[in-house]
Amino acid sequence: MERLRDVDETELLARVFPVYAGAVPVDATAVPVGPGDDAAVLAAPSGTVVVTTDGMVRGRDWRDEWSTAHDVGVKVAAQNLADVAAMGAVSTGLLVSLVADPGLAVEWAVDLARGIASVAAEAGAPVVGGDLSSGPAGVVTVTVTALGDLRGRRPVLRSGARVGDVVAVCGSLGWSGGGLALLLGGGAVPEAGERLVRYHRAPRPPWESGPLAADAGATALVDVSDGLVTDLGRVARASGVGIDLSGAVLEERFAAGPLTTCLGPAEALRQVLAGGEEHSLAACFPPGTDLGALPGAPWVAVGRVVAAGEGAPAVTVDGVVPDARGWDHFAGA
Amino acid sequence: MERLRDVDETELLARVFPVYAGAVPVDATAVPVGPGDDAAVLAAPSGTVVVTTDGMVRGRDWRDEWSTAHDVGVKVAAQNLADVAAMGAVSTGLLVSLVADPGLAVEWAVDLARGIASVAAEAGAPVVGGDLSSGPAGVVTVTVTALGDLRGRRPVLRSGARVGDVVAVCGSLGWSGGGLALLLGGGAVPEAGERLVRYHRAPRPPWESGPLAADAGATALVDVSDGLVTDLGRVARASGVGIDLSGAVLEERFAAGPLTTCLGPAEALRQVLAGGEEHSLAACFPPGTDLGALPGAPWVAVGRVVAAGEGAPAVTVDGVVPDARGWDHFAGA
Repeated sequence: MERLRDVDETELLARVFPVYAGAVPVDATAVPVGPGDDAAVLAAPSGTVVVTTDGMVRGRDWRDEWSTAHDVGVKVAAQNLADVAAMGAVSTGLLVSLVADPGLAVEWAVDLARGIASVAAEAGAPVVGGDLSSGPAGVVTVTVTALGDLRGRRPVLRSGARVGDVVAVCGSLGWSGGGLALLLGGGAVPEAGERLVRYHRAPRPPWESGPLAADAGATALVDVSDGLVTDLGRVARASGVGIDLSGAVLEERFAAGPLTTCLGPAEALRQVLAGGEEHSLAACFPPGTDLGALPGAPWVAVGRVVAAGEGAPAVTVDGVVPDARGWDHFAGA
Repeated sequence: MERLRDVDETELLARVFPVYAGAVPVDATAVPVGPGDDAAVLAAPSGTVVVTTDGMVRGRDWRDEWSTAHDVGVKVAAQNLADVAAMGAVSTGLLVSLVADPGLAVEWAVDLARGIASVAAEAGAPVVGGDLSSGPAGVVTVTVTALGDLRGRRPVLRSGARVGDVVAVCGSLGWSGGGLALLLGGGAVPEAGERLVRYHRAPRPPWESGPLAADAGATALVDVSDGLVTDLGRVARASGVGIDLSGAVLEERFAAGPLTTCLGPAEALRQVLAGGEEHSLAACFPPGTDLGALPGAPWVAVGRVVAAGEGAPAVTVDGVVPDARGWDHFAGA
């Protein structure tokens, strides 16, 4: 097997560049300077640029026995695109940094690029740069930076939710966490669970719906990266409001189906409330917004913005603070 | 000692954010959305954005016994600013990703932030976002993304050098490599070498001079990250030209002084030609450019752009291909 230490940096770049170059047709207007110089230059037609970065670490964010390099590429790209979408922006370009054990297979690095490129192609956001470094034995970390353009829109922040707003979700909830639970369980994955496991490995959140939500007047917008309650809690605190979710809607529209089939109703609802890495979008819309009229992937009303209760603003389910924590990177689950 | 695993992510961010927030005064025009939302929004007044990313890995790019966290922060920020400068652009913002062993001292992470913040303050480029992940035992990697604006200038690429151009360098050469050589030597660092070691740990390349070179009509511009010969070789290949350097000038203006005092003349010249991580700027200017008239840090003419010789375009010293290789990340030195 050919490993990174067997090829020099120039050769490795020569294998990876064409994967990215072929993925997204770009012109000199969108990408005045692509990969290969000291830095890239991207169009920023709105006169501002949206930027975010998010990484994945082998052993912590994925396990090689569960995820291919292609899966990792899809996931790390998708979670960055979701962050750009959660501002109401369109992704315009990606940068990819790989820190890897020199013993890593060259094919793994190329397959990672293919996964990232497949998402880049879907989003129309080319890979315009990156960095390669050798790391200690066993270490593989992938860090992606995504840039985006608001296309003249105002950014949709976490702080804009107002009492009376409708809270809605676009995309699935709990699938990634549910898929991970099945993998961690160690048994054979039931047929109904294959979609969950697939989503955990290589999620496809509805990033196109971020700008559409902005156009529909969304007052606040986030992607569900650390769990619905945790992420909506951030909206609540930033906006100085409370958010009350409907347990019945979450059960019927999100927990029912493969999650409940595979995990039972209680664990399914826990994953809907607290499962991380879903990267679906959650938004607040002014009262009276016709969610059914929004183009693109459907939005499901899951709750209401309410006045902040006694103490800190909080997220409740049918008026009660749920016992469902999200993810913390250093303290663990 | 308090370690990352002893504080949750929110608490860690609460310690690091103020370090960055206090460093660079920004207004809502320059940074419409700062840290804390799904993504940041930065001004891109030229309608384009310059973007680059570069990281450092403990044990590979620094050793804890030689470099403080502050040093690492200074260095990783400086090398990104140099890349933006090497396009002729002004840095407008930074993102910082830290992947760290949960056993890392919290104080180390905060001191890293202070180092990055000190450079951010000097450059007027605020830290607007980032990412925190836990990594395997012993692992610490820091990845920075820098964004920049061309302020209406055209980007200065590697491909614009023309036969007859003057090749010039702004900043030191070989100091970082010389400093590293002294540290690797293991003996006491002579007084003359302290500046070299300090530069290796925490370089201060003249990033302000990138836009000034662009204004003076630079036809090509790079930062010296992998060694003068290697980086100018990239210019030569991209431009389809050769570059001939003056050995006498390199000896008298760059190798003389602390490098020669500490390492002797032969090794000093080798570091000038091949030493990496200097991040000084190298540029080609049209013939007749009055380098002495350029504002800011001085530029020293070190050679000429010549017609590409037989075979591949190459860098020569007094007409001869030098025996001095630069750095390759996976193959080693």
